Amino acid sequence: MSLFIDMDEVIADTYYAHIEIYNNEFQENLTLEDCWGNEVWKAVPEGRQASVRNHANTIGFFRDLKPIKDSQPVLKELSQKYELYIASAAMQFPNSLLEKSEWLDEYFPFIDWKKRILCGDKHILKGDILIDDRSYNLEHFDGRSLLFTSGHNIHSNGFERVNTWLEVADKLL
Amino acid sequence: MSLFIDMDEVIADTYYAHIEIYNNEFQENLTLEDCWGNEVWKAVPEGRQASVRNHANTIGFFRDLKPIKDSQPVLKELSQKYELYIASAAMQFPNSLLEKSEWLDEYFPFIDWKKRILCGDKHILKGDILIDDRSYNLEHFDGRSLLFTSGHNIHSNGFERVNTWLEVADKLL
Repeated sequence: MSLFIDMDEVIADTYYAHIEIYNNEFQENLTLEDCWGNEVWKAVPEGRQASVRNHANTIGFFRDLKPIKDSQPVLKELSQKYELYIASAAMQFPNSLLEKSEWLDEYFPFIDWKKRILCGDKHILKGDILIDDRSYNLEHFDGRSLLFTSGHNIHSNGFERVNTWLEVADKLL
Repeated sequence: MSLFIDMDEVIADTYYAHIEIYNNEFQENLTLEDCWGNEVWKAVPEGRQASVRNHANTIGFFRDLKPIKDSQPVLKELSQKYELYIASAAMQFPNSLLEKSEWLDEYFPFIDWKKRILCGDKHILKGDILIDDRSYNLEHFDGRSLLFTSGHNIHSNGFERVNTWLEVADKLL
């Protein structure tokens, strides 16, 4: 049985990174709670939104992300039970490609290159389960779709939701 | 209708690049005909095979490839008729990722990031047509599989074969 797992906001904490970089740059104290329910860039004053939207183009942004809590041990176990693939819509940010590869080498070395997919549209994925934080990625998937909770998607409906990696473990292990 | 097209030896001429780099390095006159029916590295003396096999790890190798004859105009036309995706098993060579993205920007700018897939196993592709030079990529594909002729695959059987991009145009346009 095959299982696709997204990277950003599912195993790699981009949401928190946006807040941290914003706070450093503007000497602010923006919190997760301030942003909850929004994209981070929408939770800052208009004149600073372009700066937050540009984080993903910054060298090192994707290399320095922290893994989402419990993702490492749970993926390790999942990889023993499923054909586990990482599927990230990375092609929009060419500089992220090598960084994502190196990041996976560091935090998820048990997922080898044959099981890594950097793509655009995820309509092209054929498999059994997809875990993603974006409804538009889940919509066209033929198998079981799990929406992984992120600050920006708490108001999305219509998908089976998982809030944490321990919840994923409960469902899939 | 969706159409996946491989990169190396289908739209990007790795086969010729291996020969050219080998000839430069060893002051030889290896020709396409000398290699035909083989992987290039198998057509050189044993002591030099490791060198040829290492080309793909060399910075710039994938960025400097020449497009395969007629691939540009035919893909341009195909992209107007099909949902055309590039699907390359690039994850084995992390340094190739950015180079492949930049190479596509240069030679196939009409294929945007949403339609680019850098992956490992191609078993995960869901679509209608796959054009690839490797039997093991075509074997697990559910749709129509076209084997694009390359020096290394001329003895492969069992797949619908296309020898040139003009032949592809005849079949698909």
